[in-house]
Amino acid sequence: MTSLPIRTIGVIGTGVIGSSWTALFLSKGLRVIVSDPAPGAETKLRDYLHKNCSSVPAARSPVEACLKNYKFVKDIGPHLSDVDMIQENGPERLDFKRRLFAQLDADTPSHVLIASSSSGLPSSQFITECKNNPARILIGHPFNPPHLVPLVEIVPHSGTSEEYVNKAREFYSSLDKDPVVVKQETPGFIANRLQAAVCAEAYSLISRGVVSAEDLDKTMTSGLGLRWALSGPIITNTLGGGGSFSHFVDHLGPALKTWLDDMEKHKFEFDSKEKTDALKENVNEWVSHVDLEKAEKDRDEFLGGLVRKKLDKKN
Amino acid sequence: MTSLPIRTIGVIGTGVIGSSWTALFLSKGLRVIVSDPAPGAETKLRDYLHKNCSSVPAARSPVEACLKNYKFVKDIGPHLSDVDMIQENGPERLDFKRRLFAQLDADTPSHVLIASSSSGLPSSQFITECKNNPARILIGHPFNPPHLVPLVEIVPHSGTSEEYVNKAREFYSSLDKDPVVVKQETPGFIANRLQAAVCAEAYSLISRGVVSAEDLDKTMTSGLGLRWALSGPIITNTLGGGGSFSHFVDHLGPALKTWLDDMEKHKFEFDSKEKTDALKENVNEWVSHVDLEKAEKDRDEFLGGLVRKKLDKKN
Repeated sequence: MTSLPIRTIGVIGTGVIGSSWTALFLSKGLRVIVSDPAPGAETKLRDYLHKNCSSVPAARSPVEACLKNYKFVKDIGPHLSDVDMIQENGPERLDFKRRLFAQLDADTPSHVLIASSSSGLPSSQFITECKNNPARILIGHPFNPPHLVPLVEIVPHSGTSEEYVNKAREFYSSLDKDPVVVKQETPGFIANRLQAAVCAEAYSLISRGVVSAEDLDKTMTSGLGLRWALSGPIITNTLGGGGSFSHFVDHLGPALKTWLDDMEKHKFEFDSKEKTDALKENVNEWVSHVDLEKAEKDRDEFLGGLVRKKLDKKN
Repeated sequence: MTSLPIRTIGVIGTGVIGSSWTALFLSKGLRVIVSDPAPGAETKLRDYLHKNCSSVPAARSPVEACLKNYKFVKDIGPHLSDVDMIQENGPERLDFKRRLFAQLDADTPSHVLIASSSSGLPSSQFITECKNNPARILIGHPFNPPHLVPLVEIVPHSGTSEEYVNKAREFYSSLDKDPVVVKQETPGFIANRLQAAVCAEAYSLISRGVVSAEDLDKTMTSGLGLRWALSGPIITNTLGGGGSFSHFVDHLGPALKTWLDDMEKHKFEFDSKEKTDALKENVNEWVSHVDLEKAEKDRDEFLGGLVRKKLDKKN
């Protein structure tokens, strides 16, 4: 059953994430049935697709074809028998998602993969009313913006079958995405935890006046991030250990531990108004002079080019 | 005095870092007097320069010119009056550095900037015997490999004068490096602290079996790192807050806090043999199949291209 090809995607919700997924699916040549009950959603989506479909790395379908290859509907309900996969991007509210997933599971053919873009709620919490086949439900958490950044975190709940984890992995890979599997439901999954680790230390350093917000960001964009775009922490450690990760951990572990102990001692206190105010003040002093629109546009252009170059290298 | 142009650099030590600095300085058109007492160091350096000078982004001097523009010496001592700046890369041993810096400070004209590449020892600890002008001594900590990665952390000790902090910033910037200033001596400075924060959480997730080492690295190279190469944590947060960092912290701070609390609960224990063994086993299972030489070569090629593209954009 699961080997049926995926040709038509049901996308639920046309916020930032849902629109970006839609652009990705269309550019890769898939058909999309996309729903959102919000007034004006249809026009907003059309504008978004018009603007963004062409920037998807390794697009397989020209923009004009993309714009003809989707159907916008207010309610996905009547179309659930026509989709081969669902990517859900509704509001992150438990009651809402529980009702929605009960309906999706009941009315979609039972072999159809159902993925939620949820970043906060793990699927175990919202499949509780699913009576048909909850084994085909999992999280497919993208990284913003999904039509440019390849990462997708696949997070099964304890009842998701391996067959569907593999199906999700194959499906996302076939769209030039880079899926990773989070084997246990963990708050924040993987990427947001790593991000939180960096932010917490960044906030501490900035609020304590050790470094300016501008220089903190530069430490990332001109150093760490540049390297991490190309080799992850583990391979970086391994290269740093002369080709042996064990050597790295044995010889540099104690230094890491010293730094971590000092970081623990100066840990940013999220509950302290004084610390939070100092942080905001130091950040805003800089950010108020930054052209954010340009920063985002430049980043996305650069990001698209980088991903394209990586894909060329891989293929 | 400090406005004298910097034309000749004294590089001390030709390990990985010293050789890479030498390639950078030469490619940017500077003269280098470089010393290392180790047997075979001269030949090794020549081979390194031959191989790497051409890969420096925005090089100003062809490889043949670079290879003619340095002098290798066993001992920098007799040449200290001929240099306009020193970049020191000696062993990270306190007694060694104390003696070395006392000599450098005594025998180098007192306006000459002296920077140490030290990543572990802060300069306050090794300037203790400097009687001439310790105000011109600071850390200029590069990020590996210095001839490709633009980041340099400038870390003054409490007696370093602002004039020399500025001089260092201008000097490194003139070589297309991106210097940041660490205003207080802090263990690990900035980059290594942020790196340690990520590694600690990565080690915890891998050793607990939440994610494979391969997928952990992919989370970085296909997601977080890609984005961080282009926008740092603070601008990323600000964009995530719809243009307001304060909005981000107020609204997403609580989620960050939840993740950080869970990370704290599952903190990687560096002192536990069991945890460290589980980590190494999970990592080595993957890394033993990775062609590390190719991984490093590919990374450095890609890195050079990326930095070149960023420089084009800036200029």
